[in-house]
Amino acid sequence: MALRVGVIGGGQLARMMIAPAVELGLDIRVLAETEGMSAQLAATAVGDYRDLDTVRAFVKDVDVVTFDHEHVPQDVLHALVAEGVAVHPGPDALQYAQDKLVMRARLAELGVPQPDWAAVRNAAELQTFLDDHGGRAVVKTPRGGYDGKGVRVVRAAEDAADWFDALAADETTGAGDALLVEELVSFTRELAQQVARRPSGQVVAYPVVETVQRDGVCAEVFAPAPGTSERLVQVAEGIGRQIADGLGVTGMLAVELFETDDERILVNELAMRPHNSGHWSQDGAVTGQFEQHLRAVADLPLGDASPRAAWAAMVNILGGPAEGAFEDRFDAAMSEHPSAKIHTYGKAARPGRKVGHVNVVGDDLDDVVYTARAAAAHFA
Amino acid sequence: MALRVGVIGGGQLARMMIAPAVELGLDIRVLAETEGMSAQLAATAVGDYRDLDTVRAFVKDVDVVTFDHEHVPQDVLHALVAEGVAVHPGPDALQYAQDKLVMRARLAELGVPQPDWAAVRNAAELQTFLDDHGGRAVVKTPRGGYDGKGVRVVRAAEDAADWFDALAADETTGAGDALLVEELVSFTRELAQQVARRPSGQVVAYPVVETVQRDGVCAEVFAPAPGTSERLVQVAEGIGRQIADGLGVTGMLAVELFETDDERILVNELAMRPHNSGHWSQDGAVTGQFEQHLRAVADLPLGDASPRAAWAAMVNILGGPAEGAFEDRFDAAMSEHPSAKIHTYGKAARPGRKVGHVNVVGDDLDDVVYTARAAAAHFA
Repeated sequence: MALRVGVIGGGQLARMMIAPAVELGLDIRVLAETEGMSAQLAATAVGDYRDLDTVRAFVKDVDVVTFDHEHVPQDVLHALVAEGVAVHPGPDALQYAQDKLVMRARLAELGVPQPDWAAVRNAAELQTFLDDHGGRAVVKTPRGGYDGKGVRVVRAAEDAADWFDALAADETTGAGDALLVEELVSFTRELAQQVARRPSGQVVAYPVVETVQRDGVCAEVFAPAPGTSERLVQVAEGIGRQIADGLGVTGMLAVELFETDDERILVNELAMRPHNSGHWSQDGAVTGQFEQHLRAVADLPLGDASPRAAWAAMVNILGGPAEGAFEDRFDAAMSEHPSAKIHTYGKAARPGRKVGHVNVVGDDLDDVVYTARAAAAHFA
Repeated sequence: MALRVGVIGGGQLARMMIAPAVELGLDIRVLAETEGMSAQLAATAVGDYRDLDTVRAFVKDVDVVTFDHEHVPQDVLHALVAEGVAVHPGPDALQYAQDKLVMRARLAELGVPQPDWAAVRNAAELQTFLDDHGGRAVVKTPRGGYDGKGVRVVRAAEDAADWFDALAADETTGAGDALLVEELVSFTRELAQQVARRPSGQVVAYPVVETVQRDGVCAEVFAPAPGTSERLVQVAEGIGRQIADGLGVTGMLAVELFETDDERILVNELAMRPHNSGHWSQDGAVTGQFEQHLRAVADLPLGDASPRAAWAAMVNILGGPAEGAFEDRFDAAMSEHPSAKIHTYGKAARPGRKVGHVNVVGDDLDDVVYTARAAAAHFA
């Protein structure tokens, strides 16, 4: 019987696991939040992933559980593990992707390079950090942030007053009792390092890529990161491997990195699932990140993570067509750009929303970037 | 709303349309013959494709109809077309893939190079053909053959006596009133040319490939065909384009070809759907044949059919593991061959049955062929 992989969450990451699951012959089953989500085709249950009984009912027919997102509560995850369910990544690893303060503390223990940071419980502590870091810093809610949400650049303690008020007002949200403050890193660009790790320990690394964010949201990815020295490639891969091993990650790990003015690499964020920075690999690597994640969580030998060609570019389709249907744009986009690989998420258009992406792979960097941007622009 | 593509037939060809349909955002729906077929994930109906009411009920919720196989009867197809259903390929094109006598007659009209052939109604007519062709010939039932079934090499008229008896005994099978006899071509190797054609007329051609048959079943494909002159590549592409246009094919067309001792190219068989000779393109071409077929039947602009690398090899997994489950072999196959792309069909093992295939893509022909064979051998 085919190995049954249960995915909690029905978003585009679960959707993009369907294609490799079908080809490999894995029986993919999705617990979706609502009807009609991106991963609808593989949805076998609809319900609240925070409810243990809902999750328990879903997982009883699968061999391994993994995730579309990192929001399943620790108590639910621990209950599953206690009941003998194979959960990858497991709760002990996932906590570091769920809580940025816990992550910072653990990376410090591991000696991984990261921005200066502190846990701040009130305005006075934040002000002290600001005073020590040139009067500017980044404040983050430790939990629940994504795509730029829960992240704010501050120049004075009062800039985070509402978040401190929220902390004080509601200790029951699970938001913790402190905010994370980090130095505002002066970076030249952002990079991302992905690795996959099996429960049995095998790790494979993808080439480090350059990511371009707009308004806190990933807009473009170039793979591998252009103009990157061999030393930097090795440092980034080493950081990825160290974190995967040190945190006991299973499945795909994405490490978002800052490359600084002074040629350091600092860890920004972690994601323990397929990640936007790895979408290029669907068409640009021998083993795409979605197949790799499935192999890793099923504890199958990992695939070759080498690029298929010199360059790949990924451009997100953000928002979607302001008028008319997504499909109405296929004709122009496909006829003008026959080499563009268009990936859609089955989501309604909404300003800023990730509704798809375009990958282009080839030997000329300028050409692949141009083509990916031009094809994606048809869907704006 | 996503474009709805209905596929009649739930075999592996329908299954392999699922991955590109999901990525592109096409709503794929399958009419499967039984429960639990290869394309189960996308099956929205189960029933007999020869029954007009069954097919009619299935197609009422789709925008375009296409096929996993060529066996849907002409009267069913014509009824759908008369009711305004978009059917690709349409019955007028499909008849040439359904009846080899009709195909031979039409290719003769088009002036396409093919083996000497004749329609023979009885042993005497067959003997005359044998006498004219050195006492050897290939006899084929015009309809219903595949993977070597319905094909027989004969040296005397009595070698086909049972087929003539069957013709005489049952005129109602739709098997026609004659057998097809063809010269036994002395070929050096077999090739296949695939093209895709949209209803609006656009055609793109894949590189001609070499196919290796064992016991009448496709065993291996090398893409592009090694050691092929530019002239031969152009001739093969020209034949593919001529047939697609001449027969009004929509979707993928595969033209199986003989390359003869005396450097001619002769058309052996036609298939109007994705074809085993094109499985390499899933991993080896910018646009795989399954995505291309979906684009073509949906009348979307066709994708780039260029190879991604110098060479691709496809090796079928025939039969499957004699003992144990298919999945039990993943560990060894994947750990030894991390670059192998394993595609499974979700079928039970049975001697000679196509249950999956392995694609390997790279710059060195010997290496990709070795790796594909070695990885596939793990599933024997």
